[in-house]
Amino acid sequence: MASSTEPSTAQRTGRRSGDSGTREAILVAAREHFAKSGYAGASLRTIAGAAGVDPALIRHFFGSKDDLFAATLEIPPEVTDRLGQALESASDGIGEALVRAYLGMWEDPASAESVRAMVRSAIASDKAADRLRGLLGEQLHASAPLLLDRPDGRVRAALIGSHLIGIAVARYLVRVDPIAALDLDTVVTLCTPAIQRYLTAPLPLEPSSE
Amino acid sequence: MASSTEPSTAQRTGRRSGDSGTREAILVAAREHFAKSGYAGASLRTIAGAAGVDPALIRHFFGSKDDLFAATLEIPPEVTDRLGQALESASDGIGEALVRAYLGMWEDPASAESVRAMVRSAIASDKAADRLRGLLGEQLHASAPLLLDRPDGRVRAALIGSHLIGIAVARYLVRVDPIAALDLDTVVTLCTPAIQRYLTAPLPLEPSSE
Repeated sequence: MASSTEPSTAQRTGRRSGDSGTREAILVAAREHFAKSGYAGASLRTIAGAAGVDPALIRHFFGSKDDLFAATLEIPPEVTDRLGQALESASDGIGEALVRAYLGMWEDPASAESVRAMVRSAIASDKAADRLRGLLGEQLHASAPLLLDRPDGRVRAALIGSHLIGIAVARYLVRVDPIAALDLDTVVTLCTPAIQRYLTAPLPLEPSSE
Repeated sequence: MASSTEPSTAQRTGRRSGDSGTREAILVAAREHFAKSGYAGASLRTIAGAAGVDPALIRHFFGSKDDLFAATLEIPPEVTDRLGQALESASDGIGEALVRAYLGMWEDPASAESVRAMVRSAIASDKAADRLRGLLGEQLHASAPLLLDRPDGRVRAALIGSHLIGIAVARYLVRVDPIAALDLDTVVTLCTPAIQRYLTAPLPLEPSSE
């Protein structure tokens, strides 16, 4: 984290405690501001002020407001790798592995803020919804060999995405009790059967209804 | 709907096509503005401008910004009554009745905008989350005799709330395909088994873990 000493010097020169600290401080300020004001209402000047840097430095690191917004939604590759590995588990363990990797993404400090920002933004504005739409539908389908092999795989992926996003909204964003208060293992145990059925049990419809 | 003729007269005198038209025009403008700018960023002046009325008229009809915000989230009693009736269905039909009444609330023009605004606001700001938190957890539990009778009823209500809110987010807010494109009956058929299991099938945990 960048130190907050000598803000006026930092504002003038853009120098803080090294590039990665500055970059991170801008991202923290940007996530907070985008979440509060929405994409349309957010300004680079306000974000720069909150991060204690010159607006020019934001352009230097990130480019446009659009690029900065995209950067606030980035999930580190090691986190998405864990999701990918879960989707390649043996078919009777894939439900639990998926729920655990997915909720892990919401609990891991390396990704929690990005995921939160992505969902908040996607629900607040159509502009940001594309990314989440792809993750919950197409990308989930494409990453799971089990789903790719099935004619109803896309419906299954969307049902799984619907349940997973709902668990996250209830537990991490709206904080519905007791699902917000239960420990992670208990939530995984409770939700795994429904996810596993969407993965492998017969659906109540013919595949043609996709 | 209020007519948009003579906006300058309307602005000066606050008269439009009758009180209920004016009230509705303010609500439409307020929902749009709260969704775009968030609660903190929203201003009565901007809402009044968009509705073509004097800000004083908003205070006359609704009181404070807080009261106006609450009014944008109101769901008509006939819609909530349908949900209540669904929760009192016979136990083997309650899953389908609940999913149908819940998704109906998102599709009925009388409530669609309020529900959308409530979820958007609840996810964007903690201030608005209380209402949705109550609906998805405590109120769902208290309205379903089937759940009130069980020691694990609150966990079941939260799991059901999690799945239902996720279906709505995927179908109506983020528009994940194919769940956004499927007709209502198909979505009800696909999601009913998981909801029914959360209502009546044994949970993978002892009730004491609530």
